[in-house]
Amino acid sequence: MREAAVGQGLLGILGGMGPLAGAAFAARLVALTPAGRDQDHVPALLCNDPRIPDRSSARLGQGEDPLQAMLAGLRLLERAGASLIAIPCNTAHLWYEQMARRTRVPLLHIVEAVCDDLERLGARDPIGLMGTPATLKLGLYQEPLRARGYEVIVPDELGLAQCVAAIAAVKANRPAEAFEPAAACIRALVARGARAVVLGCTELPLAVPHDRRDEFGAVLTDSIDALARAALARCGREAAVPATA
Amino acid sequence: MREAAVGQGLLGILGGMGPLAGAAFAARLVALTPAGRDQDHVPALLCNDPRIPDRSSARLGQGEDPLQAMLAGLRLLERAGASLIAIPCNTAHLWYEQMARRTRVPLLHIVEAVCDDLERLGARDPIGLMGTPATLKLGLYQEPLRARGYEVIVPDELGLAQCVAAIAAVKANRPAEAFEPAAACIRALVARGARAVVLGCTELPLAVPHDRRDEFGAVLTDSIDALARAALARCGREAAVPATA
Repeated sequence: MREAAVGQGLLGILGGMGPLAGAAFAARLVALTPAGRDQDHVPALLCNDPRIPDRSSARLGQGEDPLQAMLAGLRLLERAGASLIAIPCNTAHLWYEQMARRTRVPLLHIVEAVCDDLERLGARDPIGLMGTPATLKLGLYQEPLRARGYEVIVPDELGLAQCVAAIAAVKANRPAEAFEPAAACIRALVARGARAVVLGCTELPLAVPHDRRDEFGAVLTDSIDALARAALARCGREAAVPATA
Repeated sequence: MREAAVGQGLLGILGGMGPLAGAAFAARLVALTPAGRDQDHVPALLCNDPRIPDRSSARLGQGEDPLQAMLAGLRLLERAGASLIAIPCNTAHLWYEQMARRTRVPLLHIVEAVCDDLERLGARDPIGLMGTPATLKLGLYQEPLRARGYEVIVPDELGLAQCVAAIAAVKANRPAEAFEPAAACIRALVARGARAVVLGCTELPLAVPHDRRDEFGAVLTDSIDALARAALARCGREAAVPATA
């Protein structure tokens, strides 16, 4: 082997939240890497363990706290050789500080990755924001976006219900049923003036296929791809524009 | 958490061969699981480390032996809590016995999974066989298929070159360029009488999208999906027919 042994210097991925988003992150990381053969890709280890209690319920006071389960997953990744960790779940980032304090290796932050992606895309505000009830209510994105000078538009009650329906359909393995509610929420945000929309839950990019991203008249930023781009940048790799998304 | 702690009783996945196939296996495992929410899915750990030397080159005497790197990946999965391991790479199974002897947890066998899938699909022979030069030359599938009573048709020189081109395009992140050579090989096998075709390299299912599988007039069996179905069966889960492939 060329540089290092298998199992050393891995990008750890704390997935399972949900599991399709975790697997999709691993796939998009590969697809966005400039590579001509297997050995050119970033070594990665995906812990796709879905037994972590629901993040949104917990944050809204209705369920078990997921922190211990997330820390168990992070420890598994650290022990197995991760030197950097990505967490493809926006809601999990409500516990970011608690996780980062107890983890020896750096944790990427999905909100910073999305904010950087908005700049890469040259997005102009107002920025429409989609996500889970917990992230929208607790302001995971609102403050960082405003700190970068963006005006933010959040969904109304109907829009929030559409986000919830789209996310639930993806988690129930029915992605085709997720498109319409997600699209309706995007359209409503654009009708209210949004010039860019954050797909700020990692199920939402799976609800809106890449080949349907152009039909909304707004820039869409995809929190799975943004996090993959951030990971590649930290690994010294510039993301490629894939021939096919 | 309900049944077990995060990191215990995981399905280990020795991926990286190639990395898109490893990630696709993780995604198809999720998509094929009957589940209504995150916590219903099979806990999985994907070691997607592409630094394993090329399997086909090594078997044809032109490259470094990948066995030690594969064993390092298997040990990582065992130490991290895997209780069953799947290897979504057909060519790697040329080292199956050597890996199984040195691994404490059971390793699924992709060829058995594909043979079981042919029975599930009610496939009739002759069976056309696609794969890497090493698996076709060394007969990874031919003997097991004949042992189950199937007549086998292997690609001619042009068909083998088409397999190689399709596999290389997927590994180079250009899946759209992989379709035509893969399709040409399938068509030629069908023209020679094949009533079913084995996509017997885990890059090949990525070359032929699910929504184009019906246009060949033959049953296609997908070694990624077959292995995912075998894993689900061993976990006591019957694979669902996904609403969208």
